[in-house]
Amino acid sequence: MRAPGPAGEATAGLAPRMNTRLVMLIRLGYDIHFDVPSPVPIVALLSIHPSRRHDLRGPDGVAVDAGVETSEYVDAFGNICTRILAPAGLLRLSNVTTVLDSGDPDPVNPEAREVPVGELPHETLRYLLSSRFCEVDLLSAAAVELFGDAPRGWGRVQAICNWVHNKVTFSYPQARSTRTALDVFTERVGVCRDFQHLAVTFCRCLNIPARYATGYLGDIGVPPSPSPMDFSAWFEVYLEDRWWTFDARHNRPRIGRIVMARGRDAVDVALTTSFGPSTLTNFTVVTEEVLE
Amino acid sequence: MRAPGPAGEATAGLAPRMNTRLVMLIRLGYDIHFDVPSPVPIVALLSIHPSRRHDLRGPDGVAVDAGVETSEYVDAFGNICTRILAPAGLLRLSNVTTVLDSGDPDPVNPEAREVPVGELPHETLRYLLSSRFCEVDLLSAAAVELFGDAPRGWGRVQAICNWVHNKVTFSYPQARSTRTALDVFTERVGVCRDFQHLAVTFCRCLNIPARYATGYLGDIGVPPSPSPMDFSAWFEVYLEDRWWTFDARHNRPRIGRIVMARGRDAVDVALTTSFGPSTLTNFTVVTEEVLE
Amino acid sequence: MRAPGPAGEATAGLAPRMNTRLVMLIRLGYDIHFDVPSPVPIVALLSIHPSRRHDLRGPDGVAVDAGVETSEYVDAFGNICTRILAPAGLLRLSNVTTVLDSGDPDPVNPEAREVPVGELPHETLRYLLSSRFCEVDLLSAAAVELFGDAPRGWGRVQAICNWVHNKVTFSYPQARSTRTALDVFTERVGVCRDFQHLAVTFCRCLNIPARYATGYLGDIGVPPSPSPMDFSAWFEVYLEDRWWTFDARHNRPRIGRIVMARGRDAVDVALTTSFGPSTLTNFTVVTEEVLE
Amino acid sequence: MRAPGPAGEATAGLAPRMNTRLVMLIRLGYDIHFDVPSPVPIVALLSIHPSRRHDLRGPDGVAVDAGVETSEYVDAFGNICTRILAPAGLLRLSNVTTVLDSGDPDPVNPEAREVPVGELPHETLRYLLSSRFCEVDLLSAAAVELFGDAPRGWGRVQAICNWVHNKVTFSYPQARSTRTALDVFTERVGVCRDFQHLAVTFCRCLNIPARYATGYLGDIGVPPSPSPMDFSAWFEVYLEDRWWTFDARHNRPRIGRIVMARGRDAVDVALTTSFGPSTLTNFTVVTEEVLE
Repeated sequence: MRAPGPAGEATAGLAPRMNTRLVMLIRLGYDIHFDVPSPVPIVALLSIHPSRRHDLRGPDGVAVDAGVETSEYVDAFGNICTRILAPAGLLRLSNVTTVLDSGDPDPVNPEAREVPVGELPHETLRYLLSSRFCEVDLLSAAAVELFGDAPRGWGRVQAICNWVHNKVTFSYPQARSTRTALDVFTERVGVCRDFQHLAVTFCRCLNIPARYATGYLGDIGVPPSPSPMDFSAWFEVYLEDRWWTFDARHNRPRIGRIVMARGRDAVDVALTTSFGPSTLTNFTVVTEEVLE
Repeated sequence: MRAPGPAGEATAGLAPRMNTRLVMLIRLGYDIHFDVPSPVPIVALLSIHPSRRHDLRGPDGVAVDAGVETSEYVDAFGNICTRILAPAGLLRLSNVTTVLDSGDPDPVNPEAREVPVGELPHETLRYLLSSRFCEVDLLSAAAVELFGDAPRGWGRVQAICNWVHNKVTFSYPQARSTRTALDVFTERVGVCRDFQHLAVTFCRCLNIPARYATGYLGDIGVPPSPSPMDFSAWFEVYLEDRWWTFDARHNRPRIGRIVMARGRDAVDVALTTSFGPSTLTNFTVVTEEVLE
Repeated sequence: MRAPGPAGEATAGLAPRMNTRLVMLIRLGYDIHFDVPSPVPIVALLSIHPSRRHDLRGPDGVAVDAGVETSEYVDAFGNICTRILAPAGLLRLSNVTTVLDSGDPDPVNPEAREVPVGELPHETLRYLLSSRFCEVDLLSAAAVELFGDAPRGWGRVQAICNWVHNKVTFSYPQARSTRTALDVFTERVGVCRDFQHLAVTFCRCLNIPARYATGYLGDIGVPPSPSPMDFSAWFEVYLEDRWWTFDARHNRPRIGRIVMARGRDAVDVALTTSFGPSTLTNFTVVTEEVLE
Repeated sequence: MRAPGPAGEATAGLAPRMNTRLVMLIRLGYDIHFDVPSPVPIVALLSIHPSRRHDLRGPDGVAVDAGVETSEYVDAFGNICTRILAPAGLLRLSNVTTVLDSGDPDPVNPEAREVPVGELPHETLRYLLSSRFCEVDLLSAAAVELFGDAPRGWGRVQAICNWVHNKVTFSYPQARSTRTALDVFTERVGVCRDFQHLAVTFCRCLNIPARYATGYLGDIGVPPSPSPMDFSAWFEVYLEDRWWTFDARHNRPRIGRIVMARGRDAVDVALTTSFGPSTLTNFTVVTEEVLE
């Protein structure tokens, strides 16, 4: 872990550290086991996203036991997908690799302007639409009422994150795979993905392209976390001329996000989708700074 | 319109007419008006799909009044999308063109096998997932109970279409834009798109890739329809080695489907998506055989 | 109809006319026909509510054709229910009677205090709970956010009515029998009952007992209404020491409400509940002032 | 606990033991603690139902610490409700009493006929309607499809219980207070109340009056249960000329049910409803046979 001190403190502030770009190495990986009663196809989105492949300092890819068939493809969102034909028995998916990171917290740019829909790049438009967990049609009126007076652009997205962060209570035991943004709005409880789904939906309601992202997020520069390490979800919005990272759960810039996959919502980037019965029996994720 | 007779009768049967391939010319188009209170960006999916472009016998494209800015792009599903910056006032989108068609009804192949998920082409996999109007997660148990005993492959898809066709009542007045497949399952009422959403969802629940399609469908060889001409929705499933057309509303092979767009569900292929207020004031669709 | 003039104008204001109590006679009734394919039991809540029975100036009761069996009972909410064993064929339910009314608009009392839950009469407590169309559990967070700062008591209920009245658009064509308060909140469209369901739910969320009511409401003192006469829905809240009438659809005091039934929501006071197939073929409602 | 043996075995069978009526004494009670941040009104439905008061062999009533105000009333369903004005601090609700029971398992009568709606007693009719957790309107089509061919009467209710028991998986960790019958139908997971809500809804869809019940259910004559003792939920249906107990979770006759409250669904009979913040800190339930 990064030694506590200036870097750790910086993560809590909102000012980007433009001039003090550090470089850090992050070792990350996972070890996921399934009990598979009979052969089943599985699709995993567990590789580092191609946009970060140039930062890889080791091989990447989903390792399986000898004899298990796998193949890779890139989906319509640009994610690397691994197809696995899991035989009956124990299926083990694992990887450990090292990634170079700037060590900077998520960039913050309160000046980033909102782009009128008519000027948005073509490829951002699909992130304005409704998806399984993001009912833009059902939450538009509420979004306009809640955030219609917020300053357009960065400030509006930040207002959305503040709202979701303050109104929704984090609760692992109450996680459920069918919870949609509307459910989060009514139940006010959820895990990482639920926070992001609601924030993503509000952004789309206000014509700001927003996409859901999964990946690694170390608790670097942060006091020991009570929960075991897990993958994390955050989201990205298109402002000014690029995508920016936001995180309605933590709601402050963080160091060391390594993206695996992006999509409309959690459906598109499920860590694993099993097309038949399988039982998760182990789930270990590691992400830590390598001190050279 | 095609003269009634053998061809008309053939559409009601299930046997593809492999040896009697006719050729017909279809003239089709639309004239859609919006009242736009203040400038608004609109995305229209009204062009003939690229897969049918070789059949075009006239120019295609969304015509607008002089001075209205438009541009085209191809979305992640391969559809031609027209972006329009509608100025305040009357917006008129129109087109008339001619398309060559085989004149054959939708192919029927009761022998078409179901492809195990592990052997499906990569690009079909996204059509197994949940989407805004197709809650695969919520309807899987019901799908297995209803269709788990149907023969796999073509027969299972046909069983799904029969069920949806018989259980859901068509009702224009009860159309609503937020109705999902689960809503169709509980309410048992809907329009074209609702029939297809429920059938698509059931197929996906059973690991059969299914995608939603929109386009022209003339009432060719069919007695005069009481309702004014409209675009139509149907769906396609991947069996054996290709996509096949199904239509849970009409539930029989039809002549003269000209596809405009395909996607996960109606969200992806909305005829027009308006990113701000606009009121539909005219909607005319034409599709008819050109008798040379 | 009451002659236009001062009385008509008074209905738009908020001041109760305590000193000018007029007396008016209202003739009201209905003629409802069903086509019944095979014998079916029906329960109708079409009688004047017992709380207004002393105002009746004629006989009341659901008239049916000779030979049709009926019986009456009072339900757990105090409503008169008529059970009908409809034989196959045409079922006609009708009535015409005369009711004496004060001619005053709904009383308005901005000073009416909110009663702490601990001091509410026992029999009001059930009107704090969730019901089929009023999901108190799902809308509580939103209710507190929207109305938590409004003055307690009358002002808070009025704030709720103002909000619902302004945010929801009335639309007969978009009526649907399964729409809940949450659906109204997300769709922002509805008919009479939908307005009241959302307002009732918000009240309950804020610990104000609220019950749903149906009855006659003439367009007395109001310019000719474009839609045919119908029954109306409103709601009542318990403040200070009694129940008060509110109406989130019209959102102003009205003259000549004659209550038929009260309950938790529309489920409890459906005009007719048919326990088997039947088709509504005629629906006529009359309510008009008798000028002596 | 009752010694294992004939009585224990009998509970697994379906034959009522008409001739071997035993008498047993059951000691039961609870100790429930809340942490109350500021004074809050609470309504508790924790008393033995009046229909069992003649079986009480000790005093009943909700005991609270000295100085806490309480009062009792009977609600519209005939349940004893205790109103409590909880002061800030620890609130403790407790009771221990003794009840005489026949020792017989729930009566089983496969001959019990279904009563046509037209002949049902008035007071049973409200148990045919939709309620917050029982969406009769949304599940009617499915109910008819699933159970429309089952023999009418007892056999149909039993078919419903079998289906729910077999299709829904019990899971304490996945409990959630907002889950409706439709949610149970789609998610196929739940706790006691969820099983009963779905079964109740199916019964009502088929015009069989069904009401939800809560109370004590000892694991008498049953191998040690892994979960700590809790209250239980079951349901009752009206057949022939009376209400009969069914239990879609356990799905077999049980000994020693002592009913506390009945209603349309869990909303009406919540053990405690707190009209403001309070945190459950202890929950202990006891029910055991007293061996004299």
